[in-house]
Amino acid sequence: MSQTAAIADAPSPDDVAGSEAPRMNRRQAAKVRTRQKVLDAARGLFAERGYEPATIRDIAKGAGMSTGAVFANFQDKAELFEAVLTEDMTKLADTVKAGAGEGSVKARLAAALTAGYHGSLDQLPLFQAIVARSWFQPLAAETRARAVTKQLLAVITQILRDGVGKGELSQDADVPLLTDLLWDAYLSNYRRAAYDSWTEEQLSAHVAKQIDVILAGALTR
Amino acid sequence: MSQTAAIADAPSPDDVAGSEAPRMNRRQAAKVRTRQKVLDAARGLFAERGYEPATIRDIAKGAGMSTGAVFANFQDKAELFEAVLTEDMTKLADTVKAGAGEGSVKARLAAALTAGYHGSLDQLPLFQAIVARSWFQPLAAETRARAVTKQLLAVITQILRDGVGKGELSQDADVPLLTDLLWDAYLSNYRRAAYDSWTEEQLSAHVAKQIDVILAGALTR
Repeated sequence: MSQTAAIADAPSPDDVAGSEAPRMNRRQAAKVRTRQKVLDAARGLFAERGYEPATIRDIAKGAGMSTGAVFANFQDKAELFEAVLTEDMTKLADTVKAGAGEGSVKARLAAALTAGYHGSLDQLPLFQAIVARSWFQPLAAETRARAVTKQLLAVITQILRDGVGKGELSQDADVPLLTDLLWDAYLSNYRRAAYDSWTEEQLSAHVAKQIDVILAGALTR
Repeated sequence: MSQTAAIADAPSPDDVAGSEAPRMNRRQAAKVRTRQKVLDAARGLFAERGYEPATIRDIAKGAGMSTGAVFANFQDKAELFEAVLTEDMTKLADTVKAGAGEGSVKARLAAALTAGYHGSLDQLPLFQAIVARSWFQPLAAETRARAVTKQLLAVITQILRDGVGKGELSQDADVPLLTDLLWDAYLSNYRRAAYDSWTEEQLSAHVAKQIDVILAGALTR
């Protein structure tokens, strides 16, 4: 689609109605819907099979379109996987942030991470596929994935910094190290959910214990 | 090969020479060598490509034999992967155990885990493939993999228990929880080696810091 053609396209009544998003013409809106359909089909297949066995052909089939239509939106499977990961991790970061609430550092961390489990357990196999791939991917993909995960780590870091600010955690607490340990503990629990059928309550209780251990040396009281 | 045929086979001069292993006849020895050749080729390919893209056909090619010969030794790729994992994890458990040495709990853990890095960094991509697969595999495979990993966890647990016994760690230290946190921290550092080119020295320094944080609440002095 040439830019001239896009501009010439009249806005649809839906686009004119008072939405806060930038207005899209009909073709642009159709493109966004197509892209989202592909992403949803891909998400389902990655969750079901993992990364490698999910083929573009089957993703196209799941979205009810041709492989050509998929490739018009995504260069390859890796780009598609990253788009799914970005969407889901951004959503999870918002969930975790909103879950933090008020209270002590421990209470806020436990609440935030519990909210994280609550908002992601229905997509458990997808999370497994994401972590699995994070262990064996090209460096460029890892670098981009880290930029996305950073939003989640930032929530943990902010809670810890608030704790230092309030004097609840020691001034010389190693916040980056604590952040990584908390994140690794949080992530590792997904394996309990996957293989040991741990419920959200079990995960929540366990992560609270892990938080206790990891923060023990940094608490001032 | 029928059992009668195996018994009828005369032992080779090599087998008769004073080895401590149970004596094998020529055919048994050839079978063991073939199996090892397949395992080595598979290890190389899993390390290079990861689990899914490594095909039996290419593993056979790497071992210089037919796919039929591979299937005579291993039922499928999953069994082959598990055999590689078992061999490598058992070797690593021995390395970690031997590395523990004497001294404080912290010193012993740091020495053991540093020995672990030392003994495995030359096979980094294989470790990445093993961890990646541990996140997305059938439950039965996970259960068997845990039985193998248990040897490694047992080394950490024993060091912690020794520390409790000597009064260096609190009587009510949660040894299983501490073991898991230490193991997760140890494992997560392999990603630094893979993507950030951390050296053995950097890994060793970092794991020592992680040990300090994780044990802070359990130390009695």
